[in-house]
Amino acid sequence: MPIGMSALLLDGRVLGSAILDETRIKVETLAQRGIQPSVVFIRVGEDPASVVYVRMKDQTAAKLGIRATTLVLDKNISQEELVTTIQKLNSDPSVHGILVQAPLPKPISEQVIFSTVDPCKDVDGFHPVNVGKLMLGDPTGFRPCTPAGVHEILIRSNIPTAGAEVVILGRGNIVGKPMASILVQKAPHCDATITMLHSRSRDIRAHCLQADIIIAAMGSANFLKADMVKPGATVIDVGVNRVPDASSPKGSKLVGDVDFDAVKEIAGAITPNPGGVGPMTIAMLMSNTVKACEIAAGS
Amino acid sequence: MPIGMSALLLDGRVLGSAILDETRIKVETLAQRGIQPSVVFIRVGEDPASVVYVRMKDQTAAKLGIRATTLVLDKNISQEELVTTIQKLNSDPSVHGILVQAPLPKPISEQVIFSTVDPCKDVDGFHPVNVGKLMLGDPTGFRPCTPAGVHEILIRSNIPTAGAEVVILGRGNIVGKPMASILVQKAPHCDATITMLHSRSRDIRAHCLQADIIIAAMGSANFLKADMVKPGATVIDVGVNRVPDASSPKGSKLVGDVDFDAVKEIAGAITPNPGGVGPMTIAMLMSNTVKACEIAAGS
Repeated sequence: MPIGMSALLLDGRVLGSAILDETRIKVETLAQRGIQPSVVFIRVGEDPASVVYVRMKDQTAAKLGIRATTLVLDKNISQEELVTTIQKLNSDPSVHGILVQAPLPKPISEQVIFSTVDPCKDVDGFHPVNVGKLMLGDPTGFRPCTPAGVHEILIRSNIPTAGAEVVILGRGNIVGKPMASILVQKAPHCDATITMLHSRSRDIRAHCLQADIIIAAMGSANFLKADMVKPGATVIDVGVNRVPDASSPKGSKLVGDVDFDAVKEIAGAITPNPGGVGPMTIAMLMSNTVKACEIAAGS
Repeated sequence: MPIGMSALLLDGRVLGSAILDETRIKVETLAQRGIQPSVVFIRVGEDPASVVYVRMKDQTAAKLGIRATTLVLDKNISQEELVTTIQKLNSDPSVHGILVQAPLPKPISEQVIFSTVDPCKDVDGFHPVNVGKLMLGDPTGFRPCTPAGVHEILIRSNIPTAGAEVVILGRGNIVGKPMASILVQKAPHCDATITMLHSRSRDIRAHCLQADIIIAAMGSANFLKADMVKPGATVIDVGVNRVPDASSPKGSKLVGDVDFDAVKEIAGAITPNPGGVGPMTIAMLMSNTVKACEIAAGS
Protein backbone atom coordinates (compact mmCIF):
# COMPACT_ATOMS: atom_id res chain seq x y z
CA MET A 1 0.00 0.00 0.00
CA PRO A 2 1.26 3.51 -0.73
CA ILE A 3 3.06 5.25 2.10
CA GLY A 4 0.84 7.67 3.93
CA MET A 5 -2.38 5.82 3.18
CA SER A 6 -4.26 5.05 6.34
CA ALA A 7 -5.67 1.62 7.09
CA LEU A 8 -9.24 0.59 6.43
CA LEU A 9 -11.19 1.10 9.65
CA LEU A 10 -12.95 -2.06 10.83
CA ASP A 11 -15.92 -0.35 12.42
CA GLY A 12 -17.34 -2.59 15.12
CA ARG A 13 -20.36 -0.35 15.56
CA VAL A 14 -21.40 -0.86 11.94
CA LEU A 15 -20.53 -4.56 11.79
CA GLY A 16 -22.10 -5.17 15.19
CA SER A 17 -25.31 -3.42 14.27
CA ALA A 18 -25.68 -5.74 11.27
CA ILE A 19 -25.51 -8.70 13.68
CA LEU A 20 -28.03 -7.00 15.95
CA ASP A 21 -30.36 -6.53 12.95
CA GLU A 22 -30.10 -10.23 12.11
CA THR A 23 -30.71 -11.08 15.73
CA ARG A 24 -33.75 -8.81 15.93
CA ILE A 25 -35.31 -10.67 12.99
CA LYS A 26 -34.83 -13.95 14.86
CA VAL A 27 -36.46 -12.41 17.94
CA GLU A 28 -39.42 -11.37 15.82
CA THR A 29 -39.71 -14.84 14.31
CA LEU A 30 -39.76 -16.34 17.80
CA ALA A 31 -42.36 -13.76 18.86
CA GLN A 32 -44.68 -15.09 16.17
CA ARG A 33 -44.59 -18.38 18.07
CA GLY A 34 -45.24 -16.57 21.33
CA ILE A 35 -41.66 -17.02 22.53
CA GLN A 36 -39.47 -14.26 23.94
CA PRO A 37 -35.77 -14.88 24.56
CA SER A 38 -34.74 -14.02 28.08
CA VAL A 39 -31.38 -13.50 29.72
CA VAL A 40 -30.33 -12.84 33.29
CA PHE A 41 -27.23 -10.80 34.04
CA ILE A 42 -25.71 -11.36 37.46
CA ARG A 43 -23.53 -8.59 38.81
CA VAL A 44 -21.79 -9.04 42.14
CA GLY A 45 -20.82 -5.79 43.81
CA GLU A 46 -20.34 -2.36 42.29
CA ASP A 47 -17.19 -2.65 40.18
CA PRO A 48 -17.51 0.51 38.03
CA ALA A 49 -16.58 -1.20 34.74
CA SER A 50 -19.00 -4.05 35.46
CA VAL A 51 -21.80 -1.57 36.15
CA VAL A 52 -21.22 0.00 32.73
CA TYR A 53 -20.86 -3.30 30.87
CA VAL A 54 -23.97 -4.87 32.36
CA ARG A 55 -26.00 -1.74 31.70
CA MET A 56 -24.92 -1.73 28.04
CA LYS A 57 -25.82 -5.40 27.65
CA ASP A 58 -29.16 -4.87 29.35
CA GLN A 59 -30.03 -1.89 27.16
CA THR A 60 -29.02 -3.66 23.96
CA ALA A 61 -31.12 -6.69 24.87
CA ALA A 62 -34.14 -4.48 25.58
CA LYS A 63 -33.80 -2.77 22.20
CA LEU A 64 -33.92 -6.14 20.44
CA GLY A 65 -36.98 -7.37 22.31
CA ILE A 66 -34.99 -9.75 24.52
CA ARG A 67 -36.26 -9.86 28.09
CA ALA A 68 -33.24 -8.91 30.21
CA THR A 69 -33.08 -8.99 34.00
CA THR A 70 -30.13 -7.79 36.03
CA LEU A 71 -29.60 -9.34 39.43
CA VAL A 72 -27.35 -7.16 41.56
CA LEU A 73 -25.89 -9.14 44.43
CA ASP A 74 -24.01 -7.89 47.46
CA LYS A 75 -20.24 -8.00 47.07
CA ASN A 76 -20.04 -10.05 50.28
CA ILE A 77 -22.24 -12.85 48.96
CA SER A 78 -20.74 -16.28 49.63
CA GLN A 79 -19.78 -18.60 46.82
CA GLU A 80 -22.42 -21.07 48.02
CA GLU A 81 -25.17 -18.46 47.85
CA LEU A 82 -24.09 -17.46 44.36
CA VAL A 83 -24.06 -21.11 43.28
CA THR A 84 -27.58 -21.56 44.68
CA THR A 85 -28.77 -18.46 42.82
CA ILE A 86 -27.39 -19.80 39.55
CA GLN A 87 -28.87 -23.26 40.13
CA LYS A 88 -32.33 -21.73 40.55
CA LEU A 89 -31.93 -19.93 37.23
CA ASN A 90 -30.64 -23.15 35.63
CA SER A 91 -33.87 -24.90 36.55
CA ASP A 92 -36.14 -22.00 35.55
CA PRO A 93 -37.39 -22.77 32.02
CA SER A 94 -38.31 -19.12 31.46
CA VAL A 95 -34.61 -18.20 31.56
CA HIS A 96 -32.69 -18.99 28.36
CA GLY A 97 -29.38 -17.31 29.06
CA ILE A 98 -27.33 -16.61 32.18
CA LEU A 99 -24.29 -14.34 32.32
CA VAL A 100 -22.22 -13.80 35.44
CA GLN A 101 -20.24 -10.60 34.96
CA ALA A 102 -16.53 -10.96 35.72
CA PRO A 103 -14.50 -10.07 37.67
CA LEU A 104 -16.01 -11.61 40.80
CA PRO A 105 -14.89 -10.58 44.30
CA LYS A 106 -11.74 -12.40 45.39
CA PRO A 107 -12.92 -15.27 47.59
CA ILE A 108 -15.30 -16.48 44.87
CA SER A 109 -13.83 -18.86 42.29
CA GLU A 110 -14.77 -17.80 38.78
CA GLN A 111 -13.96 -21.34 37.66
CA VAL A 112 -16.55 -22.77 40.05
CA ILE A 113 -19.14 -20.15 39.14
CA PHE A 114 -18.71 -20.45 35.37
CA SER A 115 -18.95 -24.25 35.71
CA THR A 116 -22.20 -23.92 37.64
CA VAL A 117 -24.08 -22.24 34.80
CA ASP A 118 -26.04 -24.82 32.78
CA PRO A 119 -24.00 -25.24 29.55
CA CYS A 120 -27.24 -24.82 27.57
CA LYS A 121 -27.71 -21.35 29.13
CA ASP A 122 -24.04 -20.38 29.08
CA VAL A 123 -24.31 -17.47 26.65
CA ASP A 124 -20.84 -16.28 27.68
CA GLY A 125 -19.29 -19.57 26.47
CA PHE A 126 -17.14 -20.00 29.59
CA HIS A 127 -18.37 -23.42 30.83
CA PRO A 128 -15.74 -26.15 30.25
CA VAL A 129 -18.19 -28.08 28.05
CA ASN A 130 -18.52 -25.11 25.73
CA VAL A 131 -14.78 -24.43 25.81
CA GLY A 132 -14.22 -28.08 24.90
CA LYS A 133 -16.78 -28.02 22.09
CA LEU A 134 -15.15 -24.92 20.68
CA MET A 135 -11.79 -26.65 20.58
CA LEU A 136 -13.26 -29.83 19.11
CA GLY A 137 -15.03 -27.86 16.37
CA ASP A 138 -18.46 -28.94 17.64
CA PRO A 139 -20.91 -26.18 16.65
CA THR A 140 -23.56 -27.14 19.24
CA GLY A 141 -21.83 -25.15 21.99
CA PHE A 142 -21.68 -21.43 22.69
CA ARG A 143 -18.67 -19.48 21.50
CA PRO A 144 -17.25 -16.89 23.90
CA CYS A 145 -18.45 -13.49 22.76
CA THR A 146 -15.22 -11.56 22.26
CA PRO A 147 -13.30 -14.03 20.09
CA ALA A 148 -16.51 -14.85 18.22
CA GLY A 149 -16.92 -11.12 17.62
CA VAL A 150 -13.36 -10.81 16.32
CA HIS A 151 -14.07 -13.71 13.98
CA GLU A 152 -17.16 -11.93 12.68
CA ILE A 153 -15.12 -8.77 12.04
CA LEU A 154 -12.75 -10.80 9.84
CA ILE A 155 -15.55 -12.64 8.03
CA ARG A 156 -17.73 -9.59 7.41
CA SER A 157 -14.73 -7.52 6.25
CA ASN A 158 -13.68 -10.23 3.77
CA ILE A 159 -10.29 -10.65 5.37
CA PRO A 160 -9.09 -14.10 4.33
CA THR A 161 -7.89 -16.42 7.07
CA ALA A 162 -7.19 -19.69 5.23
CA GLY A 163 -3.45 -20.19 5.25
CA ALA A 164 -2.99 -16.73 6.73
CA GLU A 165 -0.33 -16.13 9.36
CA VAL A 166 -2.24 -15.12 12.48
CA VAL A 167 -0.43 -13.93 15.58
CA ILE A 168 -2.42 -13.86 18.80
CA LEU A 169 -0.90 -11.72 21.54
CA GLY A 170 -2.09 -13.09 24.86
CA ARG A 171 -3.14 -16.52 26.11
CA GLY A 172 -6.04 -15.72 28.40
CA ASN A 173 -9.05 -17.98 28.78
CA ILE A 174 -11.44 -15.23 27.66
CA VAL A 175 -9.79 -14.20 24.40
CA GLY A 176 -6.38 -15.60 23.45
CA LYS A 177 -6.97 -19.33 23.80
CA PRO A 178 -10.51 -19.47 22.37
CA MET A 179 -9.42 -17.16 19.52
CA ALA A 180 -6.80 -19.74 18.58
CA SER A 181 -9.39 -22.52 18.87
CA ILE A 182 -11.68 -20.75 16.42
CA LEU A 183 -9.17 -19.77 13.77
CA VAL A 184 -7.22 -23.05 13.66
CA GLN A 185 -10.29 -25.15 12.83
CA LYS A 186 -10.47 -26.97 9.53
CA ALA A 187 -13.50 -24.98 8.40
CA PRO A 188 -14.54 -22.06 6.19
CA HIS A 189 -13.28 -18.68 7.45
CA CYS A 190 -10.74 -20.48 9.66
CA ASP A 191 -7.76 -22.66 8.54
CA ALA A 192 -5.22 -20.11 9.77
CA THR A 193 -1.66 -20.77 10.85
CA ILE A 194 -1.73 -19.73 14.49
CA THR A 195 1.10 -18.39 16.62
CA MET A 196 0.30 -17.67 20.26
CA LEU A 197 2.58 -15.18 21.96
CA HIS A 198 2.59 -14.10 25.59
CA SER A 199 4.66 -12.68 28.39
CA ARG A 200 7.19 -15.51 28.22
CA SER A 201 7.65 -15.37 24.45
CA ARG A 202 10.90 -14.28 22.83
CA ASP A 203 11.16 -12.38 19.55
CA ILE A 204 7.63 -11.01 19.72
CA ARG A 205 8.46 -8.29 17.21
CA ALA A 206 9.85 -10.76 14.66
CA HIS A 207 6.74 -12.93 14.97
CA CYS A 208 4.42 -9.96 14.61
CA LEU A 209 6.28 -8.76 11.50
CA GLN A 210 5.46 -12.09 9.81
CA ALA A 211 1.76 -11.83 10.54
CA ASP A 212 -1.02 -11.18 8.07
CA ILE A 213 -3.39 -10.71 11.01
CA ILE A 214 -2.46 -9.61 14.53
CA ILE A 215 -4.98 -9.97 17.34
CA ALA A 216 -3.79 -8.05 20.39
CA ALA A 217 -5.24 -9.30 23.67
CA MET A 218 -2.39 -8.98 26.14
CA GLY A 219 -3.85 -6.27 28.33
CA SER A 220 -0.81 -4.03 27.90
CA ALA A 221 -1.47 -0.41 26.95
CA ASN A 222 -0.25 0.53 23.46
CA PHE A 223 1.92 -2.59 23.34
CA LEU A 224 1.81 -3.10 19.58
CA LYS A 225 3.93 -0.44 17.88
CA ALA A 226 4.11 0.45 14.21
CA ASP A 227 7.54 -1.16 13.81
CA MET A 228 6.03 -4.54 14.79
CA VAL A 229 3.48 -4.58 11.98
CA LYS A 230 3.94 -5.75 8.39
CA PRO A 231 2.66 -3.17 5.90
CA GLY A 232 -0.88 -4.07 4.92
CA ALA A 233 -1.51 -6.43 7.84
CA THR A 234 -4.85 -6.55 9.64
CA VAL A 235 -4.71 -5.45 13.28
CA ILE A 236 -7.46 -6.24 15.79
CA ASP A 237 -7.24 -4.50 19.16
CA VAL A 238 -8.99 -6.37 21.99
CA GLY A 239 -7.25 -4.52 24.82
CA VAL A 240 -9.00 -2.38 27.41
CA ASN A 241 -6.44 -0.67 29.64
CA ARG A 242 -7.00 2.25 31.97
CA VAL A 243 -4.06 4.66 31.97
CA PRO A 244 -3.49 8.00 33.73
CA ASP A 245 -4.66 11.04 31.75
CA ALA A 246 -4.28 14.47 33.32
CA SER A 247 -6.54 16.06 30.69
CA SER A 248 -9.51 13.86 31.60
CA PRO A 249 -11.89 14.83 34.42
CA LYS A 250 -11.51 11.26 35.79
CA GLY A 251 -7.71 11.56 35.64
CA SER A 252 -7.54 8.44 33.49
CA LYS A 253 -8.67 7.11 30.12
CA LEU A 254 -9.10 3.77 28.37
CA VAL A 255 -6.63 2.70 25.69
CA GLY A 256 -6.14 -0.52 23.77
CA ASP A 257 -3.18 -2.83 23.27
CA VAL A 258 -2.37 -1.15 19.94
CA ASP A 259 -0.59 2.16 19.42
CA PHE A 260 -3.43 3.11 17.10
CA ASP A 261 -2.29 6.43 15.66
CA ALA A 262 1.03 5.04 14.49
CA VAL A 263 -0.12 1.52 13.55
CA LYS A 264 -2.97 2.77 11.37
CA GLU A 265 -0.37 4.26 9.01
CA ILE A 266 1.15 0.81 8.43
CA ALA A 267 -1.71 -1.65 8.76
CA GLY A 268 -4.03 -2.49 5.88
CA ALA A 269 -7.03 -2.70 8.19
CA ILE A 270 -7.44 -1.91 11.87
CA THR A 271 -10.12 -1.78 14.52
CA PRO A 272 -10.63 1.50 16.32
CA ASN A 273 -10.72 1.23 20.10
CA PRO A 274 -13.28 2.01 21.39
CA GLY A 275 -15.73 1.18 18.62
CA GLY A 276 -14.01 -1.96 17.36
CA VAL A 277 -14.23 -5.22 19.26
CA GLY A 278 -16.44 -3.95 22.10
CA PRO A 279 -19.68 -3.59 20.11
CA MET A 280 -19.03 -6.99 18.50
CA THR A 281 -18.79 -8.64 21.92
CA ILE A 282 -22.22 -7.32 22.88
CA ALA A 283 -23.68 -8.30 19.51
CA MET A 284 -22.42 -11.88 19.88
CA LEU A 285 -23.90 -12.05 23.37
CA MET A 286 -27.30 -11.18 21.91
CA SER A 287 -26.80 -13.73 19.15
CA ASN A 288 -25.90 -16.40 21.73
CA THR A 289 -28.95 -15.54 23.82
CA VAL A 290 -31.28 -16.00 20.87
CA LYS A 291 -29.50 -19.26 19.96
CA ALA A 292 -30.05 -20.53 23.52
CA CYS A 293 -33.74 -19.62 23.25
CA GLU A 294 -34.09 -21.26 19.83
CA ILE A 295 -32.51 -24.48 21.10
CA ALA A 296 -34.72 -24.48 24.20
CA ALA A 297 -37.74 -23.90 21.96
CA GLY A 298 -36.67 -26.76 19.71
CA SER A 299 -36.20 -24.67 16.59
CA MET B 1 26.51 -29.45 17.91
CA PRO B 2 29.41 -30.92 15.87
CA ILE B 3 28.48 -32.25 12.46
CA GLY B 4 28.02 -35.99 12.43
CA MET B 5 26.96 -36.22 16.07
CA SER B 6 23.65 -38.02 16.39
CA ALA B 7 20.80 -36.72 18.49
CA LEU B 8 20.02 -37.82 22.01
CA LEU B 9 17.42 -40.58 21.80
CA LEU B 10 14.29 -39.85 23.83
CA ASP B 11 13.48 -43.42 24.74
CA GLY B 12 9.76 -43.72 25.41
CA ARG B 13 10.14 -47.27 26.72
CA VAL B 14 12.50 -46.11 29.48
CA LEU B 15 10.60 -42.91 30.30
CA GLY B 16 7.27 -44.71 30.12
CA SER B 17 8.40 -47.50 32.41
CA ALA B 18 9.33 -44.89 35.04
CA ILE B 19 5.73 -43.64 34.88
CA LEU B 20 4.47 -47.21 35.11
CA ASP B 21 6.63 -47.75 38.21
CA GLU B 22 5.19 -44.64 39.83
CA THR B 23 1.70 -45.80 38.91
CA ARG B 24 2.32 -49.29 40.34
CA ILE B 25 3.24 -47.72 43.68
CA LYS B 26 -0.07 -45.86 43.67
CA VAL B 27 -1.90 -49.09 42.87
CA GLU B 28 -0.18 -50.76 45.82
CA THR B 29 -1.11 -47.87 48.10
CA LEU B 30 -4.73 -48.21 47.04
CA ALA B 31 -4.54 -51.98 47.59
CA GLN B 32 -3.65 -51.34 51.23
CA ARG B 33 -7.06 -49.70 51.50
CA GLY B 34 -8.70 -52.63 49.73
CA ILE B 35 -9.21 -50.68 46.52
CA GLN B 36 -8.26 -51.91 43.05
CA PRO B 37 -8.43 -49.54 40.08
CA SER B 38 -10.48 -50.93 37.24
CA VAL B 39 -10.80 -49.95 33.62
CA VAL B 40 -13.02 -51.19 30.81
CA PHE B 41 -11.80 -51.10 27.22
CA ILE B 42 -14.52 -51.12 24.60
CA ARG B 43 -13.53 -52.36 21.18
CA VAL B 44 -16.08 -52.31 18.37
CA GLY B 45 -15.28 -54.71 15.55
CA GLU B 46 -11.97 -56.25 14.59
CA ASP B 47 -9.90 -53.36 13.23
CA PRO B 48 -6.41 -54.95 13.31
CA ALA B 49 -4.65 -51.92 14.80
CA SER B 50 -7.36 -51.60 17.46
CA VAL B 51 -6.97 -55.27 18.37
CA VAL B 52 -3.26 -54.72 18.96
CA TYR B 53 -3.66 -51.43 20.86
CA VAL B 54 -6.37 -52.73 23.18
CA ARG B 55 -4.38 -55.89 23.90
CA MET B 56 -1.30 -53.83 24.80
CA LYS B 57 -3.33 -51.61 27.10
CA ASP B 58 -4.99 -54.61 28.71
CA GLN B 59 -1.67 -56.39 29.29
CA THR B 60 -0.03 -53.30 30.73
CA ALA B 61 -2.92 -52.74 33.12
CA ALA B 62 -2.77 -56.34 34.28
CA LYS B 63 0.97 -56.05 35.00
CA LEU B 64 0.33 -53.04 37.24
CA GLY B 65 -2.43 -54.70 39.21
CA ILE B 66 -5.20 -52.71 37.52
CA ARG B 67 -8.31 -54.76 36.82
CA ALA B 68 -8.83 -54.51 33.06
CA THR B 69 -11.81 -55.81 31.15
CA THR B 70 -12.14 -55.72 27.39
CA LEU B 71 -15.63 -55.63 25.92
CA VAL B 72 -15.57 -56.69 22.29
CA LEU B 73 -18.72 -55.56 20.52
CA ASP B 74 -19.99 -56.52 17.10
CA LYS B 75 -19.04 -54.05 14.37
CA ASN B 76 -22.72 -53.74 13.45
CA ILE B 77 -23.77 -52.54 16.90
CA SER B 78 -26.02 -49.48 16.73
CA GLN B 79 -25.00 -46.17 18.23
CA GLU B 80 -27.92 -46.45 20.68
CA GLU B 81 -26.76 -49.85 21.91
CA LEU B 82 -23.22 -48.56 22.36
CA VAL B 83 -24.54 -45.53 24.27
CA THR B 84 -26.56 -47.83 26.53
CA THR B 85 -23.51 -50.01 27.16
CA ILE B 86 -21.47 -46.97 28.18
CA GLN B 87 -24.24 -45.60 30.40
CA LYS B 88 -24.33 -48.90 32.32
CA LEU B 89 -20.59 -48.64 32.91
CA ASN B 90 -20.99 -44.99 33.92
CA SER B 91 -23.36 -46.01 36.70
CA ASP B 92 -21.30 -49.00 37.83
CA PRO B 93 -19.23 -47.81 40.83
CA SER B 94 -16.81 -50.73 40.41
CA VAL B 95 -15.63 -49.24 37.09
CA HIS B 96 -13.22 -46.30 37.43
CA GLY B 97 -12.15 -45.82 33.84
CA ILE B 98 -13.79 -46.32 30.44
CA LEU B 99 -11.98 -46.20 27.13
CA VAL B 100 -13.70 -46.57 23.78
CA GLN B 101 -11.08 -47.49 21.22
CA ALA B 102 -11.17 -45.34 18.07
CA PRO B 103 -11.79 -45.54 15.19
CA LEU B 104 -15.44 -46.56 15.47
CA PRO B 105 -17.35 -48.00 12.50
CA LYS B 106 -18.67 -45.27 10.20
CA PRO B 107 -22.32 -44.79 11.16
CA ILE B 108 -21.38 -44.29 14.82
CA SER B 109 -20.46 -40.73 15.83
CA GLU B 110 -17.26 -40.65 17.86
CA GLN B 111 -18.32 -37.23 19.13
CA VAL B 112 -21.53 -38.66 20.57
CA ILE B 113 -19.78 -41.69 22.04
CA PHE B 114 -16.92 -39.77 23.64
CA SER B 115 -19.46 -37.34 25.12
CA THR B 116 -21.40 -40.25 26.62
CA VAL B 117 -18.55 -41.44 28.83
CA ASP B 118 -18.85 -39.98 32.35
CA PRO B 119 -16.19 -37.23 32.45
CA CYS B 120 -14.99 -38.66 35.78
CA LYS B 121 -14.26 -42.00 34.06
CA ASP B 122 -12.96 -40.49 30.83
CA VAL B 123 -9.38 -41.78 31.08
CA ASP B 124 -8.82 -40.98 27.38
CA GLY B 125 -9.51 -37.28 28.03
CA PHE B 126 -11.80 -36.90 25.01
CA HIS B 127 -15.01 -35.70 26.71
CA PRO B 128 -15.69 -31.99 25.97
CA VAL B 129 -15.56 -31.21 29.71
CA ASN B 130 -12.05 -32.60 29.94
CA VAL B 131 -11.00 -30.90 26.70
CA GLY B 132 -12.33 -27.63 28.12
CA LYS B 133 -10.59 -28.10 31.47
CA LEU B 134 -7.32 -28.78 29.67
CA MET B 135 -7.62 -25.54 27.75
CA LEU B 136 -8.62 -23.58 30.84
CA GLY B 137 -5.66 -24.96 32.81
CA ASP B 138 -7.95 -26.72 35.29
CA PRO B 139 -6.03 -29.74 36.63
CA THR B 140 -9.12 -31.61 37.84
CA GLY B 141 -9.76 -33.06 34.39
CA PHE B 142 -8.10 -35.88 32.46
CA ARG B 143 -5.44 -35.02 29.92
CA PRO B 144 -5.53 -36.96 26.64
CA CYS B 145 -2.86 -39.63 26.82
CA THR B 146 -0.72 -38.90 23.77
CA PRO B 147 -0.10 -35.16 24.27
CA ALA B 148 0.27 -35.76 28.02
CA GLY B 149 2.87 -38.41 27.17
CA VAL B 150 4.75 -36.03 24.90
CA HIS B 151 4.73 -33.47 27.70
CA GLU B 152 6.21 -36.06 30.07
CA ILE B 153 8.96 -36.84 27.55
CA LEU B 154 9.94 -33.16 27.54
CA ILE B 155 9.75 -32.79 31.32
CA ARG B 156 11.63 -36.00 32.14
CA SER B 157 14.32 -35.25 29.55
CA ASN B 158 14.88 -31.75 30.97
CA ILE B 159 14.02 -30.06 27.70
CA PRO B 160 13.03 -26.51 28.61
CA THR B 161 9.74 -25.23 27.25
CA ALA B 162 9.39 -21.78 28.87
CA GLY B 163 9.81 -19.23 26.11
CA ALA B 164 10.77 -21.99 23.69
CA GLU B 165 9.57 -21.87 20.10
CA VAL B 166 7.35 -24.92 19.70
CA VAL B 167 5.96 -25.91 16.32
CA ILE B 168 3.09 -28.38 16.29
CA LEU B 169 2.50 -30.05 12.95
CA GLY B 170 -1.15 -31.07 12.81
CA ARG B 171 -4.34 -29.76 14.37
CA GLY B 172 -6.22 -32.93 15.21
CA ASN B 173 -8.44 -33.25 18.28
CA ILE B 174 -6.40 -36.18 19.63
CA VAL B 175 -2.90 -34.66 19.50
CA GLY B 176 -2.34 -31.29 17.83
CA LYS B 177 -4.93 -29.13 19.56
CA PRO B 178 -4.56 -30.55 23.09
CA MET B 179 -0.76 -30.45 22.72
CA ALA B 180 -1.04 -26.70 22.12
CA SER B 181 -3.40 -26.38 25.08
CA ILE B 182 -0.87 -28.04 27.38
CA LEU B 183 2.27 -26.20 26.31
CA VAL B 184 0.79 -22.70 26.11
CA GLN B 185 -0.38 -22.69 29.74
CA LYS B 186 1.09 -20.24 32.20
CA ALA B 187 2.59 -23.00 34.34
CA PRO B 188 5.83 -24.81 35.10
CA HIS B 189 7.08 -26.94 32.19
CA CYS B 190 4.78 -25.03 29.82
CA ASP B 191 4.94 -21.32 28.86
CA ALA B 192 5.96 -22.09 25.28
CA THR B 193 5.41 -19.95 22.23
CA ILE B 194 3.16 -22.14 20.11
CA THR B 195 2.80 -22.24 16.35
CA MET B 196 0.22 -24.64 14.94
CA LEU B 197 0.80 -25.71 11.33
CA HIS B 198 -1.42 -27.88 9.17
CA SER B 199 -2.38 -28.75 5.61
CA ARG B 200 -3.45 -25.18 4.82
CA SER B 201 -0.30 -23.55 6.24
CA ARG B 202 2.24 -21.78 4.06
CA ASP B 203 5.97 -21.70 4.71
CA ILE B 204 5.97 -24.82 6.84
CA ARG B 205 9.70 -25.28 6.36
CA ALA B 206 10.51 -21.72 7.45
CA HIS B 207 8.39 -22.13 10.58
CA CYS B 208 9.98 -25.47 11.44
CA LEU B 209 13.48 -24.03 11.00
CA GLN B 210 12.70 -21.49 13.76
CA ALA B 211 11.57 -24.15 16.22
CA ASP B 212 13.36 -25.28 19.34
CA ILE B 213 10.87 -28.16 19.60
CA ILE B 214 8.92 -29.75 16.74
CA ILE B 215 6.04 -32.08 17.50
CA ALA B 216 5.00 -33.91 14.34
CA ALA B 217 1.42 -35.16 14.39
CA MET B 218 0.21 -34.66 10.84
CA GLY B 219 -0.19 -38.30 9.87
CA SER B 220 2.05 -37.92 6.82
CA ALA B 221 4.81 -40.51 6.39
CA ASN B 222 8.33 -39.10 6.76
CA PHE B 223 7.00 -35.57 6.33
CA LEU B 224 9.62 -33.80 8.43
CA LYS B 225 12.93 -33.78 6.55
CA ALA B 226 16.38 -32.88 7.83
CA ASP B 227 16.40 -29.57 5.96
CA MET B 228 13.35 -28.44 7.98
CA VAL B 229 15.04 -28.83 11.37
CA LYS B 230 17.24 -26.32 13.17
CA PRO B 231 20.48 -27.94 14.38
CA GLY B 232 20.04 -29.01 17.99
CA ALA B 233 16.24 -28.85 17.99
CA THR B 234 14.12 -31.43 19.80
CA VAL B 235 11.94 -33.55 17.51
CA ILE B 236 8.98 -35.58 18.74
CA ASP B 237 7.40 -37.99 16.27
CA VAL B 238 3.76 -38.80 17.01
CA GLY B 239 2.97 -40.18 13.56
CA VAL B 240 1.84 -43.74 12.86
CA ASN B 241 1.60 -44.31 9.10
CA ARG B 242 1.38 -47.61 7.28
CA VAL B 243 3.37 -47.56 4.04
CA PRO B 244 4.08 -50.27 1.42
CA ASP B 245 7.19 -52.36 2.13
CA ALA B 246 8.05 -55.15 -0.26
CA SER B 247 10.64 -56.58 2.15
CA SER B 248 8.05 -57.15 4.90
CA PRO B 249 5.96 -60.34 5.02
CA LYS B 250 2.88 -58.12 5.45
CA GLY B 251 3.85 -56.03 2.43
CA SER B 252 3.74 -52.90 4.56
CA LYS B 253 5.38 -51.29 7.56
CA LEU B 254 4.72 -48.52 10.07
CA VAL B 255 6.65 -45.29 9.85
CA GLY B 256 6.35 -41.95 11.64
CA ASP B 257 5.94 -38.39 10.45
CA VAL B 258 9.69 -37.80 10.78
CA ASP B 259 12.39 -38.88 8.34
CA PHE B 260 14.23 -40.33 11.33
CA ASP B 261 17.54 -41.46 9.83
CA ALA B 262 18.27 -38.05 8.33
CA VAL B 263 16.72 -35.87 11.05
CA LYS B 264 18.63 -37.58 13.86
CA GLU B 265 21.85 -36.19 12.36
CA ILE B 266 20.56 -32.62 12.79
CA ALA B 267 18.32 -32.70 15.85
CA GLY B 268 19.61 -32.35 19.39
CA ALA B 269 17.12 -34.88 20.71
CA ILE B 270 14.62 -37.10 18.95
CA THR B 271 12.10 -39.81 19.72
CA PRO B 272 12.51 -43.14 17.98
CA ASN B 273 9.38 -44.47 16.34
CA PRO B 274 8.33 -47.04 17.42
CA GLY B 275 9.57 -46.82 21.00
CA GLY B 276 9.01 -43.09 21.46
CA VAL B 277 5.57 -41.64 21.99
CA GLY B 278 3.66 -44.96 21.86
CA PRO B 279 4.81 -46.32 25.24
CA MET B 280 4.19 -42.91 26.82
CA THR B 281 0.59 -42.94 25.62
CA ILE B 282 -0.04 -46.27 27.33
CA ALA B 283 1.73 -45.13 30.49
CA MET B 284 -0.42 -42.00 30.70
CA LEU B 285 -3.55 -44.10 30.25
CA MET B 286 -2.54 -46.14 33.29
CA SER B 287 -1.77 -42.97 35.21
CA ASN B 288 -5.19 -41.54 34.29
CA THR B 289 -6.91 -44.76 35.36
CA VAL B 290 -5.32 -44.66 38.78
CA LYS B 291 -6.17 -40.96 39.08
CA ALA B 292 -9.82 -41.77 38.30
CA CYS B 293 -9.78 -44.46 40.97
CA GLU B 294 -8.13 -42.17 43.52
CA ILE B 295 -10.72 -39.46 42.91
CA ALA B 296 -13.58 -41.97 43.16
CA ALA B 297 -12.06 -43.29 46.40
CA GLY B 298 -11.78 -39.76 47.74
CA SER B 299 -8.00 -39.75 48.06
